[in-house]
This record gives sequence, C-alpha cells and structure tokens, in this order.
Amino acid sequence: VAGFETYTANLGVRGESPDFLCVRATVPNPLTAAMFTQSLFPGPSVVASRRHLAQGDVRGLVAISKNANVGNGPEGEADMFAVLDAVGAEIGLRADQFLIASTGVIGRRYPVQQMLARIDGIRGGFGPADFDAAARAIMTTDTHPKVVSAFVDGATLVGIAKGVGMIEPNMATLFSFWFTDALLEPQFMESAFRSVHDRTFNCLSIDTDTSTSDTALMMSSGLKRGVSPDRFAETLYQEAVRLTEMVAADGEGATKVIRVTVDGAVDDWSAKLIAKSIVNSPLVKTAVHGADPNWGRVLMATGKTRGVEIDLANLSVMFGNLTVYPAEAGVDLFALTDLLRRNSVDIAVRVGLGSGTATVWGCDLSAEYVRINGMYST
Amino acid sequence: VAGFETYTANLGVRGESPDFLCVRATVPNPLTAAMFTQSLFPGPSVVASRRHLAQGDVRGLVAISKNANVGNGPEGEADMFAVLDAVGAEIGLRADQFLIASTGVIGRRYPVQQMLARIDGIRGGFGPADFDAAARAIMTTDTHPKVVSAFVDGATLVGIAKGVGMIEPNMATLFSFWFTDALLEPQFMESAFRSVHDRTFNCLSIDTDTSTSDTALMMSSGLKRGVSPDRFAETLYQEAVRLTEMVAADGEGATKVIRVTVDGAVDDWSAKLIAKSIVNSPLVKTAVHGADPNWGRVLMATGKTRGVEIDLANLSVMFGNLTVYPAEAGVDLFALTDLLRRNSVDIAVRVGLGSGTATVWGCDLSAEYVRINGMYST
Repeated sequence: VAGFETYTANLGVRGESPDFLCVRATVPNPLTAAMFTQSLFPGPSVVASRRHLAQGDVRGLVAISKNANVGNGPEGEADMFAVLDAVGAEIGLRADQFLIASTGVIGRRYPVQQMLARIDGIRGGFGPADFDAAARAIMTTDTHPKVVSAFVDGATLVGIAKGVGMIEPNMATLFSFWFTDALLEPQFMESAFRSVHDRTFNCLSIDTDTSTSDTALMMSSGLKRGVSPDRFAETLYQEAVRLTEMVAADGEGATKVIRVTVDGAVDDWSAKLIAKSIVNSPLVKTAVHGADPNWGRVLMATGKTRGVEIDLANLSVMFGNLTVYPAEAGVDLFALTDLLRRNSVDIAVRVGLGSGTATVWGCDLSAEYVRINGMYST
Repeated sequence: VAGFETYTANLGVRGESPDFLCVRATVPNPLTAAMFTQSLFPGPSVVASRRHLAQGDVRGLVAISKNANVGNGPEGEADMFAVLDAVGAEIGLRADQFLIASTGVIGRRYPVQQMLARIDGIRGGFGPADFDAAARAIMTTDTHPKVVSAFVDGATLVGIAKGVGMIEPNMATLFSFWFTDALLEPQFMESAFRSVHDRTFNCLSIDTDTSTSDTALMMSSGLKRGVSPDRFAETLYQEAVRLTEMVAADGEGATKVIRVTVDGAVDDWSAKLIAKSIVNSPLVKTAVHGADPNWGRVLMATGKTRGVEIDLANLSVMFGNLTVYPAEAGVDLFALTDLLRRNSVDIAVRVGLGSGTATVWGCDLSAEYVRINGMYST
C-alpha cells in the first residue's frame, strides 16, 4: 500500500512476542475514518483517539497489545501520553497526531520505563509497510495473524484484525485496521467504512462481551487515482466479510464458525436482534459444539428475542438445506448431526412477516473457552 | 400444607426416574396466582395454562419433566389435552381446571400411549402432599430436589423449584411452585407473589437463555385463618431467596454462586440491567470459575450495559469486602484470589448517581456446562 510505513517490536509489555505496532503515513494529508467501542467505560486510548480524530490531523497509528491500559485512572492516561510523546519524538509527530489502540488485560499498568527505553531509536526501524508483521503485533490470544488484501482499479486495500474474546462489538468493532492508497472522497470513505462495518464486524459476536477498547479505522494515502467508488465499497465489503469470518473462526476455544441468517423480519433491525439472540445463545453454541441435533434451541433463542415480532404460523428454521421446523415428517437427526459436524454451520430463520434481513457470525462454545478465560490474567 | 394432595410417578417420558407430578386441591375454591415465560415461542402448556388461569377455576397442577412438548405443532397440543383429559377423568376434574407445566427437550413428542396407559388408575395413588417427592418429579438435569418450607402464624408455606439450564426468566420464572394453606386476600396474594418473584427468580440467570416453558404459580387452600399479610409476604420473600440461591448453586456445571449487588444507580431498573450484564458476562463467569483475579472484567461488563448512566468518577467495585476499583494502592490479588475460591462470590458495584438498587444471582461457567449441553438431546 503506497504511502504507509510500519514498525513492529516487542516493548516488553508482557512476554517476548511483538506487542507494538506503529503505522505512519508518508503523505502529509492522509484521510482517516474510525469507529470506537460504545462501552460506557472506554479506555484512555479510545478517549484520546476520539479527540485526536476530531482535531482532523491524524498521521499515524500506535497499537499496543497484551495490556488494554484501562481502569488505571490518571496514571494510565499519563502512561499513554508518555508512550505517544516518545514515539512522536522519534518520527516527528505530536501525540495528538496519532490514533492509539490498546488491547489486553484490564486494570494493569504499562511497564512504561521499559517501553520508553525500547522506543528510543525506533526511527531507524521504519520501513515499507509489512502488514503480516503488523497483524502479528496486535495479537493477544489470537492463534494466527489475520490479514486480507485486494486490488481495486490499481489501488491496494489491506485489512488486519485481532480479537478472540470479549467480542460483541456494538456500533464499533474489535481491532480492525484498514489501509489503502486509493484516492477517495472523504465523505464516501467515511460512509463506506461505517456501512461495511455495520454489516460485518458489528454482526460478529464471540461471547456477548463488549470490549472497553474496540477500535476500527481506515487510512488512505490517496496516492492512487481513478478508483471506482462502487468497486471500492464492494471490495471492502467482501474483504471485511473474510476478515470477520477469520475472527469468528479464531474465537477463543472455537472449533466452528456459526453463521445465522434471518429474513422476512419486520425490518433489518428486528432481523439482527433475532440473529444475535441465536448466535449468542450458549445452548445453541454448545449444541453446535457437540454436534447435538438439538434444533429446538433455535426456536427457544428466537422466542426469547425482546422487542421483535414473530408469527408462529409463518416461522421456519433450516440448518444448511435441511428444514427442521416445521417438519411434518419429522427431522432427519442423522442428516442434522452430519451438518453440525462441519467446521462451518449455517442456520437460517425465515420469519415470514416482512423484508428485513440480517446475517451474523459467531462460533461454538467449548470447554477450551472456559479454560482460557479461567486463567487469562495469571 | 392443609388442602392439597400429590401424586408422582414415572410415566415413561424418558428414562426411569419420576417425570410426572399432579397436585390437586381438596378444597373447592383454591386461590391461584401464576406467571409464565415471556418467550415469543411459548409451549402449548403455557398457552393452555394462561387460558385456564383466566377462566378462574383452577383446581390442580400437572407437571411433566424430561420433555417440554414445544415445537410439535397441533399434534403436541393434542397430546397435551389427551394427558389432561386422562388425568382429569381419574380425579373428577375437567382439562381446563388444570395448570400444566412441561420441561425438557424441545421438538420431541410425548410418548402419549405409554403415558396414558400409566395414568390409568392413578386415582388411588393420591395421598397427603409429599413435596419432597414433588420436587423430585420435576427435575431434569437438576442434581437434587429443591424444596423450602416455613410456618407463618400457624399456616404453612412450601415452595419447590427446578431449573439448571436455559435460565434467564423474564417477567416469569423457571418452575417455581408454591403451596400454602394460609387464608389470603386474592389481590394481596397476586401482588405478593409477583413482587417477590420479580425480586428473586426474575433476578436469576444461569445462561441468559429464556425457556419456552417457564412457569411460576402459587395455590392457597385458605384453610388457615389469621395469617398476617406482612409476615406472609416477608416469609415468602425469604424462602424465595433461598430457593433462588439453590437453583443458582445447581446451575448446569456450576461450582459457585455469584451474587451481584448494584446500588446508587439512577433507578432500580438501571441497577438491574448493570447487575445482569455482570452476572451474565461469560468472561466474569469464567474468571470466577478459575478463581482468576481478573477484576477488570467487572468494569468491562458494567461498561457494556446499554441504556444506563454511569459516572466514572463515582464508580466503585468490590469483591466481598475488598475494593478493587478505585484502588490507589493497587489490588491485593492474593486476597482477591482467596475470595474467588469460595463457593459463593459477592460482587458489589456502587454507581454513585442515585438510589436505584438490585441484587441478582447467577453461577460460574465451567467446562462441565459445555459438556452437559453439547450432548443434551442424545
């Protein structure tokens, strides 16, 4: 992607794996769009990034993994600015020219002195953007880096993401960072970015828990002209779906992706509520995990959705191509078990009342999720 | 409890353990109050019970465990009436004089012929109410029967409950059946019953899943006069808390009860939303399970609560008597780990904005929950 350089390193935040990513634009006026967690308890990284974005002169990104720097009071905010000031001093930017994203355990302070010592001298380490290394540097309990890329009319689009637990983005996302050299109209980029995220990452739930640190951003250097907005938006959507599915598949302890499609709801909002109720149901998730043909739980999860309309007479439920409700002749439990043994399980609910649709992504719930999260901080 | 008889048996619904309970009032005009699931997909038992309650002549209860008889279409409804007709014929009641509650797997029909054969002749089996046997007959994956009882001014109050999974009652409850011989004013009984359930069973969540079959009821034979309404209501509340805690402790795979108290919220409704967000967070539940002192997850779960106000400057969080936020001197992680190792974990959040309070109950999330529910139907 023309117009960006990256630097990754281990700053000693926790362990020896990379925990620091800095991306800087090499053009003076990159375009930036971003969305953040809707948590009532956002971390200082989110608070500062919102402010810097509003100031309109963002030139770079700092992302720190393995520690969210949340719940540390004024000291945590001071730690963050110490890091940003030090990075900025290296590459000639002010702290308020960065967006910053930080992810990991909550309520523990950065090892600031060690981090500052390792930031010293990084100016010489920047080089052509390496997004594989960037994706690796933002991992927490991710088992592999998540990168997608595509060409559009001669421009390049790259997206990286992280996130495996504490994932039910709400009008924002986990970490999803997009870089492109396509020259885009600012308003178009903002709306395409938001629209695509609402239909992809905001339709993803691993465990119903919304992070204090979710951050999604897109930066464009604008160095490649002549890119069709329609093709760009379509490419962004396709790649965002791919990245969303990668994140779902790597959910903590996950062995299967669950995709739930609802159509025929009164409106899209209702469809999404029903779909989320199903994909988030621990009983649906455990049945998928165990390949237990307990399809009635989809009825239960549909029925527990608050604030939507359903019509029992019109409702139907399918797993893959197999209709389980209504099923006058009974459900073929062997066929259903076979479908549930695949590593991707599709559930479709037809409400039969209107034209509202939604697709959401999630994953199964395993004993491994419990194991990982019963000892995460220690 | 004067004025009631019970009968329990195995009707062959599934396996050999008791799966059938019938309670009949021996007085002609018992008082009955009841609440049912708010699921959009209630089972025929709930639909019929609502209708029978409205008709105002309820004389008995039929409860069937191990099969919810939900999602079976008109055939399921016909099966239910066949059972009620047969039981009614034995003891001289019409089908519409029963409340019926059925719990277990969804989408599987009753083995009706076998059940009818075993109902034949039960009239001779009724005897003085045996609520231990009754509590045993309504168990599904419960590991033990759940019964409480108390005396109030010479009257007796007995409550039984079941429920271990698919439990987040919403304006209703799992199965909670109460019987008393206290003579009560109808309006007082109705309001006391609802008020107490709203503060106990409706504040319980094991896994966020709302059953299609939740049923709570109270029947009074009215044979004991002179009972103080205030003392009755207070006794009912105390016993309902006990029964709620018993259900939480026996949550599928649970090893610990989690009790979350929120105070200082703008109103009680906000306090309950925050408390539910915490007690339902899989990351809080797994941390408690593993005794991992990852207290930051309580901040996360507080922050993700939609539609409430919090004020970061006034917020505080405690585990037992240990304040973890704000904690200028740092959190004593060893003391916190000790608290988390107990079989009952108290979390308190003070919002500092108003006088809204709530207490909710839940349990930890274990690998055993995943195991039970990955093979429940098979």
